[in-house]
Amino acid sequence: MSTVPDVTAVRDYLRRLQDSLCAALEAEDGAGKFREDIWDRSDASPSALAGGGRTRILTDGDVFEKVGVAFSDVRGTQLPPSATAHRPELVGKSWQALGVSVVVHPKNPHVPTSHANVRFFIAGQNSSTSRPSPLASGPAPQASGDAAAAPVWWFGGGFDLTPYYGFEADAAHWHRTARAAVTPFGEALHPRFKQACDDYFFLKHRNEPRGVGGLFFDDFNELGFDRSFALMRGVGDAFLPAYRPIVARRKATPFGERERQFQLYRRGRYVEFNLVWDRGTLFGLQSGGRAESILMSLPPLVRWDYDWKPEPGSAEARLYDVFLKPRDWAKEETADDR
Amino acid sequence: MSTVPDVTAVRDYLRRLQDSLCAALEAEDGAGKFREDIWDRSDASPSALAGGGRTRILTDGDVFEKVGVAFSDVRGTQLPPSATAHRPELVGKSWQALGVSVVVHPKNPHVPTSHANVRFFIAGQNSSTSRPSPLASGPAPQASGDAAAAPVWWFGGGFDLTPYYGFEADAAHWHRTARAAVTPFGEALHPRFKQACDDYFFLKHRNEPRGVGGLFFDDFNELGFDRSFALMRGVGDAFLPAYRPIVARRKATPFGERERQFQLYRRGRYVEFNLVWDRGTLFGLQSGGRAESILMSLPPLVRWDYDWKPEPGSAEARLYDVFLKPRDWAKEETADDR
Repeated sequence: MSTVPDVTAVRDYLRRLQDSLCAALEAEDGAGKFREDIWDRSDASPSALAGGGRTRILTDGDVFEKVGVAFSDVRGTQLPPSATAHRPELVGKSWQALGVSVVVHPKNPHVPTSHANVRFFIAGQNSSTSRPSPLASGPAPQASGDAAAAPVWWFGGGFDLTPYYGFEADAAHWHRTARAAVTPFGEALHPRFKQACDDYFFLKHRNEPRGVGGLFFDDFNELGFDRSFALMRGVGDAFLPAYRPIVARRKATPFGERERQFQLYRRGRYVEFNLVWDRGTLFGLQSGGRAESILMSLPPLVRWDYDWKPEPGSAEARLYDVFLKPRDWAKEETADDR
Repeated sequence: MSTVPDVTAVRDYLRRLQDSLCAALEAEDGAGKFREDIWDRSDASPSALAGGGRTRILTDGDVFEKVGVAFSDVRGTQLPPSATAHRPELVGKSWQALGVSVVVHPKNPHVPTSHANVRFFIAGQNSSTSRPSPLASGPAPQASGDAAAAPVWWFGGGFDLTPYYGFEADAAHWHRTARAAVTPFGEALHPRFKQACDDYFFLKHRNEPRGVGGLFFDDFNELGFDRSFALMRGVGDAFLPAYRPIVARRKATPFGERERQFQLYRRGRYVEFNLVWDRGTLFGLQSGGRAESILMSLPPLVRWDYDWKPEPGSAEARLYDVFLKPRDWAKEETADDR
């Protein structure tokens, strides 16, 4: 076991995770198939974002209206000023970011939308083997100076659930699976990551959570490389056990036009969050990232209604009253009734 | 004629403009009616945004799927730091902003979406007559000190057009009407405002204009109060002559599912612009403005398709090839053919 960051091991895990997510979601859908879009910007100019990715999209399945599962591996020769404002030691350092994101927009409004992401960031490592140096025709890089400064790295990730017509049993199962994934790495982590998720996935302009939350962590390296990497794998591997039983349980629930319209309306909140508040989306769009990969998270069909409010006591009001309030779901003594 | 800013005259004009816009759009629709939503936050805490507005929404008309026409009159006792960074003389000053916005989302994809806005901003004026002082139970305001500093004010506004299936004649008519509205105030204004519009309504993450542009101006006070106010009225009054003939000419053009789906897809760009790039929307949402009024601009129904591209040579490709390129439309020798 090593405590030196092993980028290759992270990349291998992330690519396998993308494969297993796609296989399981295709199996759960039963009809839809992913199409793959491989993109490569490794020949970008040195000042631009370089790298590539594999974006996989499933649309119009039997169960899923749209699923995006994206692997990306991007790097740059210089961090933007916003990233180094509080870390002067990183000014001018090369960096690399790898991640897998999944966003699932189901057809049936009784199946919640879900999102997961795991990612790794490293800056200041010797990247000359992984990329032709942009300085190849200029002076040689100061290798001895680079070697003296240890690279800076961290993991991030999490998953969160966005119901339309909620079920207490589903929320409890989701959060218990999340708790089980991170508790082996420390008792304090689950409350901390759960709170961070509630704080992050919040629409301030609506004073409304995006959904029932889950896990969120970032800048995580406190357990050393091996254990931090294992934690990230634990979260990545927990997404399917957290989500798939909910899909299986709700996908055949009958619904009509009323439920469909409410789902389309609530998807508007998803768009609002991603485009107004999500740091990854905004940073990506504003820094020249690949727009189609970043925006694969957007729902396939969305409606906005001016100042719409659910009828008090209705099934739609129940979403706001019961589920869009932060709650200790993992602790709930909810009967796991089907 | 006075050169002292007359807030009452501006407010009166804006309210009349809202009335005339609604009357004309109802007449053009022939079936839909506006419903009015009056909101009032004059009792907000002194540190919050105070004021009120009249939001009017028409939905599911014969011609228009959704129209929002909003008048607002908001004020605060202290400008946010972002607004005073380059104007230290305004630190701690009270301010007031009045405006009318209109956004029209037609049903027929041959009728373009349109947007107009006119607004007035003033800071540092003696506002004790227009609002109960939040200091009423504290020390009296230092009236003499306030009187010594002249208020700072400006006008802003413009209009822009977003076609789905474009017509050269429509774009030329739109821009000629825009040019005729501002040229009486100076020959140089039209090229300047047209360029500012092309620059502003641009989706950097797509490297794509929002539409065919029009007029955009801001921080405008260079003609003194009376002439600057007249310019703003000229722009406000030109919107209907610019837009209504286009609606009248295209609203009965037959269309099918293909055109409808392209319209829904392109509306996604409208959402992306407003939520990612529009300064007014972002400032409003992030500073505690009224979310429903700010987001009335969003289309009623929207779709996103991953990495969709029009077939070369198709009617959809024509939008990108002919209309989503900045062009001197007012100068075009376009036959105004119907």
